[in-house]
Amino acid sequence: MLPEPIKIFSEIFSKLPSIGPRQAQRLAYQIIGLGKARIKELADSIDALSDVKTCQNCFSIHFSGPTNENLCSICRDPKRLKNIIAIVEKETDLISLEKTRKYNGKYLVIGDLQKTGSLESEQKLRLGVLKKLIQKELGGKADEIIIATNPNTYGDLNASMLTNELKDFTKKITRLGRGIPTGGEIEFADEETLGSALERRI
Amino acid sequence: MLPEPIKIFSEIFSKLPSIGPRQAQRLAYQIIGLGKARIKELADSIDALSDVKTCQNCFSIHFSGPTNENLCSICRDPKRLKNIIAIVEKETDLISLEKTRKYNGKYLVIGDLQKTGSLESEQKLRLGVLKKLIQKELGGKADEIIIATNPNTYGDLNASMLTNELKDFTKKITRLGRGIPTGGEIEFADEETLGSALERRI
Repeated sequence: MLPEPIKIFSEIFSKLPSIGPRQAQRLAYQIIGLGKARIKELADSIDALSDVKTCQNCFSIHFSGPTNENLCSICRDPKRLKNIIAIVEKETDLISLEKTRKYNGKYLVIGDLQKTGSLESEQKLRLGVLKKLIQKELGGKADEIIIATNPNTYGDLNASMLTNELKDFTKKITRLGRGIPTGGEIEFADEETLGSALERRI
Repeated sequence: MLPEPIKIFSEIFSKLPSIGPRQAQRLAYQIIGLGKARIKELADSIDALSDVKTCQNCFSIHFSGPTNENLCSICRDPKRLKNIIAIVEKETDLISLEKTRKYNGKYLVIGDLQKTGSLESEQKLRLGVLKKLIQKELGGKADEIIIATNPNTYGDLNASMLTNELKDFTKKITRLGRGIPTGGEIEFADEETLGSALERRI
């Protein structure tokens, strides 16, 4: 029933976690409505997403253009404090924290944590990189590690798992202050709430 | 702050009516997570959306592959009744009606109607094509025109506007039976409800 290109687009696109099959189909028609030139622009913008890199220290996604830089701009910035590290699940959480302009430390993007409180192999690898960096650059102990998981049941579970993993590598472990409504998600908090949560971290 | 390719993608993508800036950004990261090969696949699937065509009779979107066919499969199908025409706003409404398997007439996709009860020039053109077809192929009058606009305030307003436009070109004008909850949208009705709304049209 559906024209072939729309079917193919919808199948591929609805595999993305935030897009359902109905939305994928509606999107297809909206994209078609843009006309040839803007469809090309859209396709190219997706193609260009291949060009981003993962920072080899904090695993955030960055784009360094033609230069061959393996570190993101935060990890390269000499003004950022090396001895405070915030662990976030998602890139978008990092961006939300940066927007508050109240944090001047580094990050580790660990990736979406499971609901079972255990780590995937990629996440173990990322924690391993952090531990090695702490040993090499901070003499074995960071001043503070902020575990910035969501303030809900699974976030709490994963925070205590991460606390166990990291307690020997830092003088202090904190979490974001509960200025954020419990049950909510970091990504959707406004900048002010998130800013005071950073200031009153527990 | 955002890596350049993500910024560009988000800007272009968030212009689509069903995608907000936050979702566009989240999508970018999800797409990056797919890896180079599947990113390419996704971009190609968008590129291929340029290959669809608009049916010159009913204005639905179709894909005829390498052949140079100007009519969609419904307009080409000799088993579909020519003298019953359903007017839908969107392609997705047409698909919902087709899925009920209870309709065997033709369509006119008129495009999203305004809330003012007036027609855009493209919509006037499409109605003109329908009127000419009725004159040429049905001797001046269709047996029935089903005005399948949404059963809400704007849909009602536009239905009476379309009724005025078309009353001289058909023996009967109907709308979908109000089996669909008033205030709802055709696109989200389940197949059964929509099927009985077709059977009990008023």
